[in-house]
Amino acid sequence: MDPTKLLDILGNENRRKIIQLLANRPCYVSEISSRLGVGPKAIISHLGLLEQAGLIECSVDEQRRKYFNIANNMRLEVSVSPYAYTVTLHDVPFDRENKEEDPVGEETPQGEEPSAFFLKLNGRLKELKKRQEELAQMQQQLQAEYTEAMNRCLDSIEEIARNPVECELLFELLKDETTLASLCYNLRLHPSIVNANLIDLTKRGFIEYGIKNNQYYWKIREIGVENE
Amino acid sequence: MDPTKLLDILGNENRRKIIQLLANRPCYVSEISSRLGVGPKAIISHLGLLEQAGLIECSVDEQRRKYFNIANNMRLEVSVSPYAYTVTLHDVPFDRENKEEDPVGEETPQGEEPSAFFLKLNGRLKELKKRQEELAQMQQQLQAEYTEAMNRCLDSIEEIARNPVECELLFELLKDETTLASLCYNLRLHPSIVNANLIDLTKRGFIEYGIKNNQYYWKIREIGVENE
Repeated sequence: MDPTKLLDILGNENRRKIIQLLANRPCYVSEISSRLGVGPKAIISHLGLLEQAGLIECSVDEQRRKYFNIANNMRLEVSVSPYAYTVTLHDVPFDRENKEEDPVGEETPQGEEPSAFFLKLNGRLKELKKRQEELAQMQQQLQAEYTEAMNRCLDSIEEIARNPVECELLFELLKDETTLASLCYNLRLHPSIVNANLIDLTKRGFIEYGIKNNQYYWKIREIGVENE
Repeated sequence: MDPTKLLDILGNENRRKIIQLLANRPCYVSEISSRLGVGPKAIISHLGLLEQAGLIECSVDEQRRKYFNIANNMRLEVSVSPYAYTVTLHDVPFDRENKEEDPVGEETPQGEEPSAFFLKLNGRLKELKKRQEELAQMQQQLQAEYTEAMNRCLDSIEEIARNPVECELLFELLKDETTLASLCYNLRLHPSIVNANLIDLTKRGFIEYGIKNNQYYWKIREIGVENE
């Protein structure tokens, strides 16, 4: 799924509530409608949108009633900071269907009591949750370090740049390697000006160029990382 | 900020584009308007909303023109899976203002060439980005393991539960420890029925109760984690 599509979906409170309900258990339209206090017509329209996006799917039970469940396993990360806005959506492999064919995914292993196995699985779930929290903490720490490093880079750019265009160019390249065309477009500067400054920065050893996909792109000169 | 508020904000394409622009560099209203091809009136209304939420702030430059920049450093994580929908928003400490007082946050360290220092900082940024990607991968892996463990738990519940109510109770408690009242509400079952089943599951050694904040809450019985 396109991450912006997921953001559009999650931008509506009732759709978020529907996802919350379905993540708890599969539900019928009437159930969702009464839980949320929202008319079935509106619920059906939201469900249609969610189904179209592949986020949910529907099945029919023995009484031929249609119920909905989450069809996806994914993880959206958005980071907003003064120097970066990134949105990433990861699909997490999810093989409920193929489980039967997976030799590891068997039911209670032979020789193990079902009840003991269940308690063990519960312990495993708790452990996984704890590790998820630890990783989230590490990510925060990294984002803080990144912002701090970026702050210092900006100070450093002010020391080494000889004019405002150099400042802008170094800042752009710090965020990512890029082509002359993108630099001209992003900074709204004439190619001749950008080029002259790029050549000067190259001579002074700050930047270099490479070829990727048959295109020249510019980047900050790479040196061995000596940190930590 | 309330994570649902951020989701409401990010649910609009033009607001996302504004954030993207400002994360690149501070901008004036006229600049944003021309970049997005959206009238200044609409831009001002979006900016007002973003400012009110504390996501952006404005400053006035020497020509007394108002420009906007990202005021926040935060990280939103949304995970959607058949068994869980979680939204977390972390504020990442961000001390651009106090940098001067931070002895570590100085400009080029004494005895180091500004240009060498700049290249080193760039290397550090790259390294941080790489570590962020690695962590994101680990998080995906964990989410996949969690879903798989949950699948196996559900199979296990079917083996040990003696009736549908027990199934539902064990599934609820697997997700999180909870009170009798919440169980009755979530499952729409009468307290006497829930209670009778809880007592039976306790006797069979599957669940136990504890006291937290002066409330009884139920949970799957904890055993030592023997995994890995």
